[in-house]
Amino acid sequence: MSEFGALHIPGDPLVLPNAWDVASAAALARAGFAAIGTTSLGVAAAHGLPDGRGAGRAETVDLMRRLGRLPVLVTVDAEGGFGGGPAEVAQLAADLADAGAVGINLEDGHLDGTLTPVADQVALIAAVKARVPGLFVNARTDTRWLDAGDLGETLARTRAYVAAGADGVFVPGLAEDDDIRAVVTGAGAPLNVLLLPGMTVPRLAALGVARISTGSMLFRAALGAAVAAARSVARGAPGPDGIPGYAEVNGLAAADLE
Amino acid sequence: MSEFGALHIPGDPLVLPNAWDVASAAALARAGFAAIGTTSLGVAAAHGLPDGRGAGRAETVDLMRRLGRLPVLVTVDAEGGFGGGPAEVAQLAADLADAGAVGINLEDGHLDGTLTPVADQVALIAAVKARVPGLFVNARTDTRWLDAGDLGETLARTRAYVAAGADGVFVPGLAEDDDIRAVVTGAGAPLNVLLLPGMTVPRLAALGVARISTGSMLFRAALGAAVAAARSVARGAPGPDGIPGYAEVNGLAAADLE
Repeated sequence: MSEFGALHIPGDPLVLPNAWDVASAAALARAGFAAIGTTSLGVAAAHGLPDGRGAGRAETVDLMRRLGRLPVLVTVDAEGGFGGGPAEVAQLAADLADAGAVGINLEDGHLDGTLTPVADQVALIAAVKARVPGLFVNARTDTRWLDAGDLGETLARTRAYVAAGADGVFVPGLAEDDDIRAVVTGAGAPLNVLLLPGMTVPRLAALGVARISTGSMLFRAALGAAVAAARSVARGAPGPDGIPGYAEVNGLAAADLE
Repeated sequence: MSEFGALHIPGDPLVLPNAWDVASAAALARAGFAAIGTTSLGVAAAHGLPDGRGAGRAETVDLMRRLGRLPVLVTVDAEGGFGGGPAEVAQLAADLADAGAVGINLEDGHLDGTLTPVADQVALIAAVKARVPGLFVNARTDTRWLDAGDLGETLARTRAYVAAGADGVFVPGLAEDDDIRAVVTGAGAPLNVLLLPGMTVPRLAALGVARISTGSMLFRAALGAAVAAARSVARGAPGPDGIPGYAEVNGLAAADLE
């Protein structure tokens, strides 16, 4: 098993914060996180692109090339593979692995609320594993996120993806304790859950979850803090206290990348 | 005078928040700011590059191309012009203006604490104004930021830059009331001050300042909020309340850019 795969321990989950640019990734690495993911919403929005429409392939690969220089394991949120068939998505996975990625997320949901047919998603996953066997494929099903399938459909899809070679499964929107336990037991691979409002790491750990993602939460927290500070200053208040200094932030590039 | 230039009113300053990517710019525009700047630290760090070394020219132009689609006036922090002589920096200014920029910051300071000779900086400013007369050139002197010159040197440099065609002057690090008043009175163009910890917009307005920049503050606040949220979640707490939602953030691209 890869170093990254070994971090997926049911009951003692990998807490995976999600970055959107080099600075956020470097700051999270410096904060002590051994591995980070990217957030497709964050990467897309940072570049003025919509999420989930396959628009950010070039930007995602460029970001991974820059992140590959950081002293941290990185797994990439690649939406549904940014379009194309199994060959194109396998090439994307190879490009990301060449840039230093240790893992990839591939999702089966679409903005119109539908899911990719199981057979097509299985072919995608199998093609990626055949091309880059060492890349940890986290197969995401959007049955719950899009309310596009019940627990039975969720279990059927996760099992099919694992049978196709997926190293882990990701079910964002999975929230009820019984549902989480059922997928932990039934998927046949480590379960990744998205941390939703009100959830905590200890609760998900107790349910047997192996990986917890923050998704776009950190990106949204960052954006909210920036706008709040700008508004506060414009209203006449001094700037916020306790934020990182110029030298510390500039040092993220200097210390980790040179 | 340009629409952007007209916002520089001594005593009723333009409060200019600084963005580092499209999402931060779009969020600040949506918050009601009529104009935004970029932060060279933020743009460099977001791409894993050090600030102030002329490393981020391509990234800065690419960002401006994306920002040019937003419904907000944008002025670009271009460090010292990212290297090259007057012809190269004039070309950079033309590229930025083509992408939609209404202004540019050009600084005379270097990481080693020295300043570009006045005559060289004057030639740079004159070349930019000759090439792109409508672009608001905010001539930054780092006399105070780098502690590289006293008030007399500050006044001499700002006057020389204005004589060369600069539309405004920027003196980051300027902090004492008397010094600010002296440059407001003596520079011959609107004064931009960097909002330092403890400063407020009303105080700077009362001193006659025409533009107030947040510099890298919002970027640093954003990064600090992201790392704090990640650490808090890893320690077992729920995620932060009151942050922008997924749809709101994804809508920044959808609403403003399509």
